[in-house]
Amino acid sequence: MAHGMPSQAYFPFASISGDALVPDSFSTSNSRSEGSVSWLWRLLGGSSRKEKTVPITIPKYPANSGDINLAQALQYGTATGLPQLREFIHDLVGKVYQPAYSDWTTLVHTGNTDGWSKCVNLLCNPGEMFITEDWTYPSALAGSLPYGHHPVGVPMDDQGMLPDELRKLLVEWDEVARGAKRYAISPDPLPHVMYTVPVGQNPTGVTMGLERKKAIYDICVEFDVIIVEDDPYYFLQMGEYTPKAGRAVHGQFSDPSAWLASLTIAPGARLGFFTCNPRFAERLERIGETTTQAPCGFGQSLITQLLTSWKFDGYARWLQGLAVEYVTRRDLLIDALQDEFNLQVSVGTTGSWKNCVVYIAYPKPRRGDAMSEKAALFAQSKPLFSLVPPTAGMFIWLKMLWENVPGFKEGDEETLEVQLWIKLAEAGVLVGPGRYFAHNEEQVSPVEGHFRMSFSFSSEADFKKATKILAEVVSDFFGQSA
Amino acid sequence: MAHGMPSQAYFPFASISGDALVPDSFSTSNSRSEGSVSWLWRLLGGSSRKEKTVPITIPKYPANSGDINLAQALQYGTATGLPQLREFIHDLVGKVYQPAYSDWTTLVHTGNTDGWSKCVNLLCNPGEMFITEDWTYPSALAGSLPYGHHPVGVPMDDQGMLPDELRKLLVEWDEVARGAKRYAISPDPLPHVMYTVPVGQNPTGVTMGLERKKAIYDICVEFDVIIVEDDPYYFLQMGEYTPKAGRAVHGQFSDPSAWLASLTIAPGARLGFFTCNPRFAERLERIGETTTQAPCGFGQSLITQLLTSWKFDGYARWLQGLAVEYVTRRDLLIDALQDEFNLQVSVGTTGSWKNCVVYIAYPKPRRGDAMSEKAALFAQSKPLFSLVPPTAGMFIWLKMLWENVPGFKEGDEETLEVQLWIKLAEAGVLVGPGRYFAHNEEQVSPVEGHFRMSFSFSSEADFKKATKILAEVVSDFFGQSA
Ligand SMILES: Cc1ncc(COP(=O)(O)O)c(C=O)c1O
Ligand SMILES: Cc1ncc(COP(=O)(O)O)c(C=O)c1O
Repeated sequence: MAHGMPSQAYFPFASISGDALVPDSFSTSNSRSEGSVSWLWRLLGGSSRKEKTVPITIPKYPANSGDINLAQALQYGTATGLPQLREFIHDLVGKVYQPAYSDWTTLVHTGNTDGWSKCVNLLCNPGEMFITEDWTYPSALAGSLPYGHHPVGVPMDDQGMLPDELRKLLVEWDEVARGAKRYAISPDPLPHVMYTVPVGQNPTGVTMGLERKKAIYDICVEFDVIIVEDDPYYFLQMGEYTPKAGRAVHGQFSDPSAWLASLTIAPGARLGFFTCNPRFAERLERIGETTTQAPCGFGQSLITQLLTSWKFDGYARWLQGLAVEYVTRRDLLIDALQDEFNLQVSVGTTGSWKNCVVYIAYPKPRRGDAMSEKAALFAQSKPLFSLVPPTAGMFIWLKMLWENVPGFKEGDEETLEVQLWIKLAEAGVLVGPGRYFAHNEEQVSPVEGHFRMSFSFSSEADFKKATKILAEVVSDFFGQSA
Repeated sequence: MAHGMPSQAYFPFASISGDALVPDSFSTSNSRSEGSVSWLWRLLGGSSRKEKTVPITIPKYPANSGDINLAQALQYGTATGLPQLREFIHDLVGKVYQPAYSDWTTLVHTGNTDGWSKCVNLLCNPGEMFITEDWTYPSALAGSLPYGHHPVGVPMDDQGMLPDELRKLLVEWDEVARGAKRYAISPDPLPHVMYTVPVGQNPTGVTMGLERKKAIYDICVEFDVIIVEDDPYYFLQMGEYTPKAGRAVHGQFSDPSAWLASLTIAPGARLGFFTCNPRFAERLERIGETTTQAPCGFGQSLITQLLTSWKFDGYARWLQGLAVEYVTRRDLLIDALQDEFNLQVSVGTTGSWKNCVVYIAYPKPRRGDAMSEKAALFAQSKPLFSLVPPTAGMFIWLKMLWENVPGFKEGDEETLEVQLWIKLAEAGVLVGPGRYFAHNEEQVSPVEGHFRMSFSFSSEADFKKATKILAEVVSDFFGQSA
């Protein structure tokens, strides 16, 4: 009679159930035409389309002990969540990520945003700053600012953080801390936490190769920095465009990092997990107890029932299908850009894309243009933006080449990024404004401009429409319409 | 193309559904025999019992615009949750709690534990202490300690916090702050946040009457203290044993407080809501965006569909049935205590139950005792513990009268509370040890001892068994076995 639990007789559901999609709902064939057609058909079918499903049911009381049941899932439990889910996650991590240390532990959380917020509260002292990529996921920053946990950005290339820049930052830390005093409550001599998105980084779309990971890891060991990897896009890795450094091998990067991943089921499920050492896991569980507690029992039980009915192989099959869908989507969006711009493959010479294979976008003559206009355009043509095709995730990151805007001068009150963003929005295309993803907006010079385009959601028809508008508006803005 | 949302085509459920209990699943008749029998029958029936249910279904795509659907519920959304849920909550608060100010706002959270953690982070500066009852819900304290948000306890009686004690605390605050320096990072001259459980307080079970609320409120206005009410048991208020001050009238207490309540559906649902002014709501929404985001979409959609199919009247009917179940449970547990102890109604003369109607428990002769033993017991009889029958919530709080334990002396290394708790556990009865609920364990003198018994979960048979063991073990411990 010690506990504070209500009786499960009072839970108002006798059972819940779901029509779960089968694991092979999406083709694993990477063939574009097949992929895009089936994908379009699915999307356009909308609500009328009949998906192939199998029913799963969660009764209030288990028929056999060990069965997932509502009496348990909707009751107070430990912040570690349903045991069956815990087991599935542990198995998944062992098979897929293969952490390179023996006592790794997993723990549920309510999504990576929540996971990171718990990590930063756990690992950073008040006022302590943390290291991150120059451009990153804004919600990872906003929540920790009120605690004085300000981000310090590290410049990136097509594989994310640059090791030399990271080393430089740490060596010169004292200077940075002095400069940051107006933010930080009590700057620590050295930041000892790093937040990084190693795969399909948001917003840049870049992925760390194995060598890069090792280099960053070694520096972190040297300076005693705990790496927190936020890895929602691990399963959205795409075969093509893989940089020559090779595919990311996760296991080599996971000690001493804490590490969070989502289950790639549906973002509204608010369900993900940590992988970390037992010491961190115990503390994170305590934080869970006094904040979110366990993730929602309806979601946990439905997802666990889904995963245990799919089994590991079915889930792997589902994820493969998903990855192929995203490859198709990425390719369709880059194709659409190729249709509307003159995209030249090149090797970057300066800045963050030095030595990277980048695509440089030039204006393209339009269908109705006269030959003379085409020739004039070609002669005067200057590049508009560049991009590195992403190898994972959901985003394409356009680096705008403002220096080619006529009359460009540094230091405008209203940046060119804002001006062009408004023009695009007025023409009907919403893109993510780059500054929104800056680790510190005040440090972004007006010269720098980016837009993030997401290929995860819109239809192929919308890709075509959006890139057409993009071409018109951007070319105009750069004074390069024919 | 600005957003970072995946396509809903990739959500692996075509639909989810639930067999929802009908709103009149539980009798509203308070008649004990009827109530207890149907209740026992329900509990003992366990999984084999057929509950009366109606099916509810949530499809991936809405049939009519405005319908609850998975494409929305499982997608990224705002931290305000499903619009249909928001509307239901707003309507509920307006009808039931009737906040006494016009611009009150509601906002979902993932349970009251999460809600309070967000409030304390929002309202307290680093190192700032907050006011609470002397005995309170431990998870409300544990999470904020690492931020230096230490609780300051206010002594209570059978209606919760004592106004005079609160005033004294605030007037003498400087002294307290000096004494607390070893905890606090930078003690604020005055705490300006109060955490209180006004109804069916955990662990004491007491409820604030209207006059008490007004007195506390006036002091908070005077000293500029923001009241945060944690109110999970509002709907578990019970008719009998209502203190003469009258039933709590909530609306009179809600300005300028933030206020959190759970939906009384099932604790594992992790779904509750704030009621507060728009300024707090906006900030709490921002905190939500960088931590939990919206509550789980599976849970939100199932519960919203349930509530909108029940409608307000059905939900009210459901809650009435629940309240009656809890009345029955409370009465059964107090009956069982009455069977095993000699419970004497009395008016408290000292300490926290001064002037309150309390029940004092004396040992009762056992069935087999000879007349002479009974007489001896009666002659030597000293009280063992006292209790105030709760008017809401799930708990009975036993105040142990250690001074009647033979050889009692203050300052034992291992407190009597721990000793008796272990004896009870060894005999098969787990109760909540009182110290666990202390606002500051170090301030609890060894003289004070409490146990919390919960009547929310166990069966009537277990109540009888537990109180029988309690009587044996406690009487022995007090050297008062016949
Ligand atoms: C890098 C990164 N982390 C976290 C998230 C959010 O993850 P979750 O929905 O699991 O909180 C996103 C979503 O856009 C993201 O891009
Ligand atoms: C006073 C009090 N607040 C909060 C909670 C937990 O509420 P929730 O499950 O909504 O987080 C409890 C549960 O025991 C409680 O007694």
